[in-house]
Amino acid sequence: MIIRNIDEASQSERKVKTDGWDSVRMLLKDDGMGFSFHITTMYAGKTLQMHYKNHYESVYVLSGEGTIEDLGTGEIHELRPGVLYVLNKHDRHIVRPRTDIVTACVFNPPVTGKEVHDETGAYPSEAEMAQASA
Amino acid sequence: MIIRNIDEASQSERKVKTDGWDSVRMLLKDDGMGFSFHITTMYAGKTLQMHYKNHYESVYVLSGEGTIEDLGTGEIHELRPGVLYVLNKHDRHIVRPRTDIVTACVFNPPVTGKEVHDETGAYPSEAEMAQASA
Repeated sequence: MIIRNIDEASQSERKVKTDGWDSVRMLLKDDGMGFSFHITTMYAGKTLQMHYKNHYESVYVLSGEGTIEDLGTGEIHELRPGVLYVLNKHDRHIVRPRTDIVTACVFNPPVTGKEVHDETGAYPSEAEMAQASA
Repeated sequence: MIIRNIDEASQSERKVKTDGWDSVRMLLKDDGMGFSFHITTMYAGKTLQMHYKNHYESVYVLSGEGTIEDLGTGEIHELRPGVLYVLNKHDRHIVRPRTDIVTACVFNPPVTGKEVHDETGAYPSEAEMAQASA
Protein backbone atom coordinates (compact mmCIF):
# COMPACT_ATOMS: atom_id res chain seq x y z
CA MET A 1 0.00 0.00 0.00
CA ILE A 2 1.20 3.45 -0.90
CA ILE A 3 -0.04 6.48 1.06
CA ARG A 4 0.57 9.99 -0.29
CA ASN A 5 -0.92 13.38 0.42
CA ILE A 6 -1.22 16.38 -1.80
CA ASP A 7 0.43 18.79 0.63
CA GLU A 8 3.70 16.85 0.60
CA ALA A 9 3.47 16.07 -3.10
CA SER A 10 2.99 19.78 -3.88
CA GLN A 11 6.31 20.54 -2.18
CA SER A 12 8.16 17.99 -4.32
CA GLU A 13 9.11 17.32 -7.92
CA ARG A 14 5.67 15.81 -8.32
CA LYS A 15 4.32 19.34 -8.88
CA VAL A 16 4.83 20.77 -12.36
CA LYS A 17 3.82 24.36 -13.04
CA THR A 18 3.45 26.20 -16.33
CA ASP A 19 1.99 29.57 -17.27
CA GLY A 20 -1.47 28.09 -17.80
CA TRP A 21 -1.78 25.24 -15.34
CA ASP A 22 -0.11 23.18 -12.65
CA SER A 23 -0.31 19.48 -11.99
CA VAL A 24 0.52 17.39 -8.94
CA ARG A 25 1.33 13.90 -10.11
CA MET A 26 0.08 11.72 -7.26
CA LEU A 27 0.75 8.48 -9.16
CA LEU A 28 3.19 7.98 -12.04
CA LYS A 29 4.26 5.16 -14.30
CA ASP A 30 6.90 3.89 -11.88
CA ASP A 31 4.21 3.13 -9.31
CA GLY A 32 3.23 0.23 -11.55
CA MET A 33 -0.55 0.76 -11.48
CA GLY A 34 -0.95 0.96 -15.26
CA PHE A 35 -2.37 4.50 -15.07
CA SER A 36 -1.28 7.83 -13.62
CA PHE A 37 -3.37 10.09 -11.38
CA HIS A 38 -2.95 13.85 -11.19
CA ILE A 39 -4.60 16.76 -9.40
CA THR A 40 -4.43 19.47 -12.03
CA THR A 41 -5.42 23.14 -11.79
CA MET A 42 -6.13 25.12 -14.95
CA TYR A 43 -5.88 28.86 -14.44
CA ALA A 44 -8.67 31.41 -14.77
CA GLY A 45 -8.64 33.38 -18.01
CA LYS A 46 -6.29 31.10 -19.93
CA THR A 47 -6.98 29.45 -23.29
CA LEU A 48 -5.52 25.96 -23.08
CA GLN A 49 -5.33 24.07 -26.37
CA MET A 50 -4.34 20.44 -25.84
CA HIS A 51 -4.06 17.27 -27.83
CA TYR A 52 -2.89 14.08 -26.15
CA LYS A 53 -1.94 12.09 -29.22
CA ASN A 54 -0.40 9.28 -27.20
CA HIS A 55 -2.63 9.06 -24.14
CA TYR A 56 -6.24 8.54 -23.16
CA GLU A 57 -7.30 10.93 -20.43
CA SER A 58 -10.32 11.42 -18.18
CA VAL A 59 -10.78 14.68 -16.27
CA TYR A 60 -13.23 15.10 -13.38
CA VAL A 61 -13.96 18.66 -12.27
CA LEU A 62 -13.67 19.12 -8.51
CA SER A 63 -14.10 22.89 -8.38
CA GLY A 64 -14.31 25.87 -10.71
CA GLU A 65 -16.10 26.68 -13.95
CA GLY A 66 -15.39 27.17 -17.62
CA THR A 67 -15.88 25.48 -20.97
CA ILE A 68 -14.30 22.80 -23.12
CA GLU A 69 -14.43 23.00 -26.91
CA ASP A 70 -14.15 19.79 -28.92
CA LEU A 71 -12.16 20.87 -31.96
CA GLY A 72 -13.25 17.75 -33.85
CA THR A 73 -16.97 18.57 -33.65
CA GLY A 74 -17.00 22.25 -32.71
CA GLU A 75 -19.19 21.48 -29.69
CA ILE A 76 -18.69 23.48 -26.50
CA HIS A 77 -19.54 21.93 -23.13
CA GLU A 78 -19.87 23.62 -19.75
CA LEU A 79 -17.42 22.58 -17.05
CA ARG A 80 -18.50 22.74 -13.41
CA PRO A 81 -18.03 20.52 -10.34
CA GLY A 82 -19.20 16.98 -11.04
CA VAL A 83 -18.58 17.07 -14.80
CA LEU A 84 -16.30 14.42 -16.32
CA TYR A 85 -14.78 14.85 -19.74
CA VAL A 86 -13.17 11.90 -21.42
CA LEU A 87 -10.67 12.13 -24.26
CA ASN A 88 -11.32 8.68 -25.68
CA LYS A 89 -10.39 9.58 -29.26
CA HIS A 90 -7.25 11.59 -28.59
CA ASP A 91 -9.57 14.56 -29.09
CA ARG A 92 -8.06 17.94 -29.84
CA HIS A 93 -9.65 20.40 -27.42
CA ILE A 94 -9.51 23.83 -25.81
CA VAL A 95 -10.32 24.49 -22.16
CA ARG A 96 -11.25 28.04 -21.22
CA PRO A 97 -11.45 28.37 -17.43
CA ARG A 98 -13.56 31.28 -16.17
CA THR A 99 -12.24 30.57 -12.67
CA ASP A 100 -9.39 28.31 -11.64
CA ILE A 101 -10.58 24.75 -12.35
CA VAL A 102 -9.28 21.96 -10.12
CA THR A 103 -9.53 18.48 -11.59
CA ALA A 104 -8.71 14.83 -10.90
CA CYS A 105 -7.09 13.39 -14.06
CA VAL A 106 -6.28 9.83 -15.08
CA PHE A 107 -3.91 8.98 -17.94
CA ASN A 108 -3.48 5.69 -19.76
CA PRO A 109 -0.73 4.86 -20.52
CA PRO A 110 0.62 6.39 -17.32
CA VAL A 111 2.62 9.58 -17.53
CA THR A 112 6.27 9.06 -16.59
CA GLY A 113 6.66 12.52 -15.05
CA LYS A 114 9.29 13.59 -17.56
CA GLU A 115 6.89 14.85 -20.25
CA VAL A 116 6.20 18.47 -21.03
CA HIS A 117 3.54 19.55 -23.51
CA ASP A 118 5.13 20.00 -26.93
CA GLU A 119 4.21 22.67 -29.47
CA THR A 120 1.09 20.73 -30.48
CA GLY A 121 -0.22 20.55 -26.90
CA ALA A 122 0.62 16.85 -26.65
CA TYR A 123 2.69 14.80 -24.31
CA PRO A 124 5.26 12.84 -26.35
CA SER A 125 5.19 9.05 -26.35
CA GLU A 126 8.02 7.26 -24.59
CA ALA A 127 9.50 6.40 -27.99
CA GLU A 128 9.50 10.09 -28.97
CA MET A 129 11.20 11.03 -25.70
CA ALA A 130 13.85 8.41 -26.31
CA GLN A 131 14.46 9.85 -29.77
CA ALA A 132 14.59 13.41 -28.43
CA SER A 133 17.22 12.54 -25.88
CA ALA A 134 19.21 10.27 -28.23
CA MET B 1 -15.14 12.97 -26.38
CA ILE B 2 -17.51 11.75 -23.71
CA ILE B 3 -19.15 14.24 -21.32
CA ARG B 4 -20.92 12.96 -18.20
CA ASN B 5 -22.02 14.57 -14.96
CA ILE B 6 -22.50 13.04 -11.58
CA ASP B 7 -26.04 14.32 -11.11
CA GLU B 8 -27.32 12.39 -14.13
CA ALA B 9 -25.10 9.37 -13.41
CA SER B 10 -26.46 9.22 -9.85
CA GLN B 11 -29.99 8.85 -11.22
CA SER B 12 -28.99 5.91 -13.44
CA GLU B 13 -27.74 2.35 -13.19
CA ARG B 14 -24.26 3.80 -12.79
CA LYS B 15 -25.00 4.27 -9.08
CA VAL B 16 -24.63 1.17 -6.92
CA LYS B 17 -25.59 1.35 -3.26
CA THR B 18 -24.90 -1.08 -0.44
CA ASP B 19 -25.31 -0.89 3.33
CA GLY B 20 -21.80 0.51 3.76
CA TRP B 21 -21.09 2.58 0.68
CA ASP B 22 -22.32 3.77 -2.67
CA SER B 23 -20.42 4.22 -5.90
CA VAL B 24 -21.20 6.20 -9.04
CA ARG B 25 -19.33 4.58 -11.92
CA MET B 26 -18.50 7.51 -14.15
CA LEU B 27 -16.35 5.38 -16.49
CA LEU B 28 -16.58 1.63 -16.99
CA LYS B 29 -14.84 -1.00 -19.04
CA ASP B 30 -17.06 -0.52 -22.07
CA ASP B 31 -15.82 3.06 -22.40
CA GLY B 32 -12.57 1.56 -23.62
CA MET B 33 -10.19 3.72 -21.58
CA GLY B 34 -8.37 0.80 -19.93
CA PHE B 35 -9.39 1.94 -16.43
CA SER B 36 -12.63 2.74 -14.63
CA PHE B 37 -13.34 5.89 -12.61
CA HIS B 38 -15.80 6.02 -9.71
CA ILE B 39 -16.99 8.59 -7.20
CA THR B 40 -17.47 6.45 -4.10
CA THR B 41 -18.87 7.42 -0.71
CA MET B 42 -18.08 5.28 2.34
CA TYR B 43 -20.55 5.78 5.17
CA ALA B 44 -19.80 7.17 8.62
CA GLY B 45 -19.49 4.58 11.36
CA LYS B 46 -19.10 1.54 9.09
CA THR B 47 -16.24 -0.98 9.16
CA LEU B 48 -15.44 -1.80 5.55
CA GLN B 49 -13.12 -4.75 5.00
CA MET B 50 -12.06 -5.06 1.37
CA HIS B 51 -9.67 -7.07 -0.70
CA TYR B 52 -9.45 -6.48 -4.44
CA LYS B 53 -7.72 -9.67 -5.47
CA ASN B 54 -8.14 -8.99 -9.17
CA HIS B 55 -7.76 -5.23 -9.43
CA TYR B 56 -5.33 -2.45 -8.64
CA GLU B 57 -7.07 0.54 -7.12
CA SER B 58 -6.15 4.10 -6.18
CA VAL B 59 -8.44 6.12 -3.90
CA TYR B 60 -8.18 9.90 -3.49
CA VAL B 61 -10.09 11.44 -0.58
CA LEU B 62 -12.19 14.44 -1.62
CA SER B 63 -14.00 15.00 1.68
CA GLY B 64 -14.46 13.33 5.06
CA GLU B 65 -12.23 11.66 7.62
CA GLY B 66 -11.43 8.24 8.98
CA THR B 67 -8.69 5.62 8.91
CA ILE B 68 -7.41 2.82 6.73
CA GLU B 69 -5.79 -0.27 8.24
CA ASP B 70 -3.36 -2.28 6.13
CA LEU B 71 -4.06 -5.85 7.22
CA GLY B 72 -0.75 -7.00 5.75
CA THR B 73 1.37 -4.75 7.96
CA GLY B 74 -1.04 -3.73 10.73
CA GLU B 75 -0.35 -0.06 10.00
CA ILE B 76 -3.19 2.45 10.36
CA HIS B 77 -3.19 5.63 8.27
CA GLU B 78 -5.36 8.71 8.69
CA LEU B 79 -7.70 9.58 5.83
CA ARG B 80 -8.59 13.21 5.19
CA PRO B 81 -9.04 15.38 2.08
CA GLY B 82 -5.95 15.24 -0.12
CA VAL B 83 -4.82 11.77 0.97
CA LEU B 84 -4.33 9.11 -1.72
CA TYR B 85 -4.17 5.43 -0.84
CA VAL B 86 -2.98 3.00 -3.43
CA LEU B 87 -3.65 -0.74 -3.34
CA ASN B 88 -0.69 -1.76 -5.46
CA LYS B 89 -0.29 -5.20 -3.88
CA HIS B 90 -3.94 -6.27 -3.81
CA ASP B 91 -3.68 -5.22 -0.15
CA ARG B 92 -6.29 -6.50 2.28
CA HIS B 93 -7.56 -3.47 4.17
CA ILE B 94 -10.24 -2.01 6.43
CA VAL B 95 -11.60 1.52 6.08
CA ARG B 96 -13.30 3.02 9.13
CA PRO B 97 -14.99 6.31 8.19
CA ARG B 98 -15.62 8.68 11.09
CA THR B 99 -17.69 10.83 8.74
CA ASP B 100 -18.94 10.01 5.27
CA ILE B 101 -15.83 9.86 3.07
CA VAL B 102 -16.19 10.84 -0.60
CA THR B 103 -13.45 9.55 -2.89
CA ALA B 104 -12.33 9.48 -6.52
CA CYS B 105 -11.33 5.88 -7.33
CA VAL B 106 -9.52 4.38 -10.31
CA PHE B 107 -9.50 0.65 -11.06
CA ASN B 108 -7.21 -1.30 -13.38
CA PRO B 109 -8.38 -3.50 -14.99
CA PRO B 110 -11.56 -1.47 -15.37
CA VAL B 111 -14.67 -2.56 -13.53
CA THR B 112 -17.39 -3.80 -15.88
CA GLY B 113 -20.24 -2.53 -13.68
CA LYS B 114 -21.63 -6.00 -13.09
CA GLU B 115 -19.45 -6.88 -10.09
CA VAL B 116 -20.59 -6.98 -6.50
CA HIS B 117 -18.20 -7.53 -3.60
CA ASP B 118 -18.10 -11.23 -2.76
CA GLU B 119 -17.81 -12.68 0.72
CA THR B 120 -14.08 -11.89 0.82
CA GLY B 121 -14.61 -8.20 0.04
CA ALA B 122 -13.27 -8.67 -3.50
CA TYR B 123 -14.64 -7.94 -6.91
CA PRO B 124 -14.49 -11.17 -8.94
CA SER B 125 -12.38 -11.35 -12.08
CA GLU B 126 -14.18 -11.54 -15.40
CA ALA B 127 -13.26 -15.24 -15.58
CA GLU B 128 -14.86 -15.86 -12.19
CA MET B 129 -18.00 -14.01 -13.26
CA ALA B 130 -18.19 -16.13 -16.41
CA GLN B 131 -17.91 -19.28 -14.29
CA ALA B 132 -20.54 -18.05 -11.85
CA SER B 133 -23.04 -17.41 -14.59
CA ALA B 134 -22.20 -20.58 -16.52
